[in-house]
Amino acid sequence: MKILIIGAAGMIGTKLTARLFADGEIGGKPITDLVLADIVAPTPPPMVGVEITTVAADLSEPGVATRLVASRPDIIFHLAAIVSGEAEVDFDRGYRINLDGTRGLLEAIRQAGEAYCPRVVFTSSIAVFGAPFHQAISDDFFNTPLTSYGTQKAICELLISDYTRRGFLDGIGIRLPTIVVRPGLPNKAASGFFSDIIREPLAGQEAILPVAESTRHWFATPRSAVNFLVHAAGLDGEAVGARRNMTMPGLSVTVAEQIDALRNVAGDRVADRIVRKPDAAIMRIVEGWPRNFAAERALALGFHAESSFEEIIRIHIADELGGNWVN
Amino acid sequence: MKILIIGAAGMIGTKLTARLFADGEIGGKPITDLVLADIVAPTPPPMVGVEITTVAADLSEPGVATRLVASRPDIIFHLAAIVSGEAEVDFDRGYRINLDGTRGLLEAIRQAGEAYCPRVVFTSSIAVFGAPFHQAISDDFFNTPLTSYGTQKAICELLISDYTRRGFLDGIGIRLPTIVVRPGLPNKAASGFFSDIIREPLAGQEAILPVAESTRHWFATPRSAVNFLVHAAGLDGEAVGARRNMTMPGLSVTVAEQIDALRNVAGDRVADRIVRKPDAAIMRIVEGWPRNFAAERALALGFHAESSFEEIIRIHIADELGGNWVN
Repeated sequence: MKILIIGAAGMIGTKLTARLFADGEIGGKPITDLVLADIVAPTPPPMVGVEITTVAADLSEPGVATRLVASRPDIIFHLAAIVSGEAEVDFDRGYRINLDGTRGLLEAIRQAGEAYCPRVVFTSSIAVFGAPFHQAISDDFFNTPLTSYGTQKAICELLISDYTRRGFLDGIGIRLPTIVVRPGLPNKAASGFFSDIIREPLAGQEAILPVAESTRHWFATPRSAVNFLVHAAGLDGEAVGARRNMTMPGLSVTVAEQIDALRNVAGDRVADRIVRKPDAAIMRIVEGWPRNFAAERALALGFHAESSFEEIIRIHIADELGGNWVN
Repeated sequence: MKILIIGAAGMIGTKLTARLFADGEIGGKPITDLVLADIVAPTPPPMVGVEITTVAADLSEPGVATRLVASRPDIIFHLAAIVSGEAEVDFDRGYRINLDGTRGLLEAIRQAGEAYCPRVVFTSSIAVFGAPFHQAISDDFFNTPLTSYGTQKAICELLISDYTRRGFLDGIGIRLPTIVVRPGLPNKAASGFFSDIIREPLAGQEAILPVAESTRHWFATPRSAVNFLVHAAGLDGEAVGARRNMTMPGLSVTVAEQIDALRNVAGDRVADRIVRKPDAAIMRIVEGWPRNFAAERALALGFHAESSFEEIIRIHIADELGGNWVN
């Protein structure tokens, strides 16, 4: 199988690459070619028996998509995007990269010819939804994004479905939950604190909680995100049907439940490193975010996620901290 | 008020122009300028005291949108689109006109500057929905179009909401029901028979019914379509909120109910001019179409449509046939 990962240098892209490296196959078929593309050249793992190519290119630049699909990969993971905050600050750049970049990729696949119909796995986001919501958002709830990023993702979902329906490609769009615990340094994303309040205390550092403990949100681990991608790559398109985009399973918990789980897993001393410092701006942003889903379609199609926040923390400790934390 | 109608030469555009001509005002303010644009120059009515300009141009051509908004109209009605059947046959042309044309218009408005924020009334379609459906489609049901036309309309709806949220314009997207009774000659649209079976018998002609009489669909008259547009132009944006697109009210009836209504209004001789000739291709297309809606938001915002199919037929006889038909 020839695999192309666009956005391979990002957090999820790196973990997906490592997973494919470990598996050596996808959907029961050996991986023979792996093309890793991003705006900076990804660092490839040493895969034996696999032709690895790295590409540093901007998908939204003319000709890049055509070049990427020229080798006719069987599976294309399209993870590349600029994040929510940046798409909100820079309107033109958000639309150029998140919408036109994706549309250009779909067009390049279409132009590659009729006999070419790769599986395209597109990472969408729960940002396609905007408040007010029902108690748990059902699979047939409408998309009314409250950010330009969410709008761009919702548009790409529609394109994925239409290009699939027309037979130009075989797409699956998966709406990722907020991914916790994100490894690395705290970033400026408004959602960053959901990871910060777990990761930093486990590293012996204080972390700021800018919202009320009653704040509820929808989570899965980086490990689950990679599972979703690999599972989506192997799905039977006929079983999915015409509705090609779906909300991934996740766990709906409050910040209070996050903190309780941290206390249970790592003790009081760690949990007490969380500093309450309410931030009205962040609270207002988070107010518009989804809190809970009934992701029945994805569950029926075999996707699964974590069932407790303690499990989420233990996966972080296992995958990122080698089993240890700073007490 | 300066008014721009894009798509002014079409059936709805012509009727909207005539309505504005008759009213002389919109939302209580006198109309001073009227720009009528379409790919062929619209024929303007003789409005006293109103500056009328006609423009023959393709909105999807470079510079056209910028030229159209240069005079900074207060209200823009964007009705221009290629129809469902054509967008399905010519993929590129559908996306170029229905998506890129609309996006270009929104961009031209944005580029016109911060102080410019016109009301944009966009005609969307119930084609943004695709089967399977609930009994009556609610206002928060998701968009899963089964045509490229429906996809393009759904994407434009998302853009209308985002450009409005960002303060670049003040948009309202209205999803029109299937419009009956369409005046003029039978056309090749798959939905044409819903009008044909009323219009042709009233004109003394036979009409072919290609589907089962149990087929249910969602209707409003051309007169209601114009009412929707004028009402949308005057809506308070604050009252509409962030969700800028909505399904218009309509009437859900079966073909059998259409025929009964024709019989009640015009007699057996007229109704007996309908010839049953099932067409598997048309039946399959119609199978994917919406049948019924609970258009509660639009009703709450003051939109209204017909309440019986007899009323729909009587409006056709009054507006198009001067009160007479061929018995």
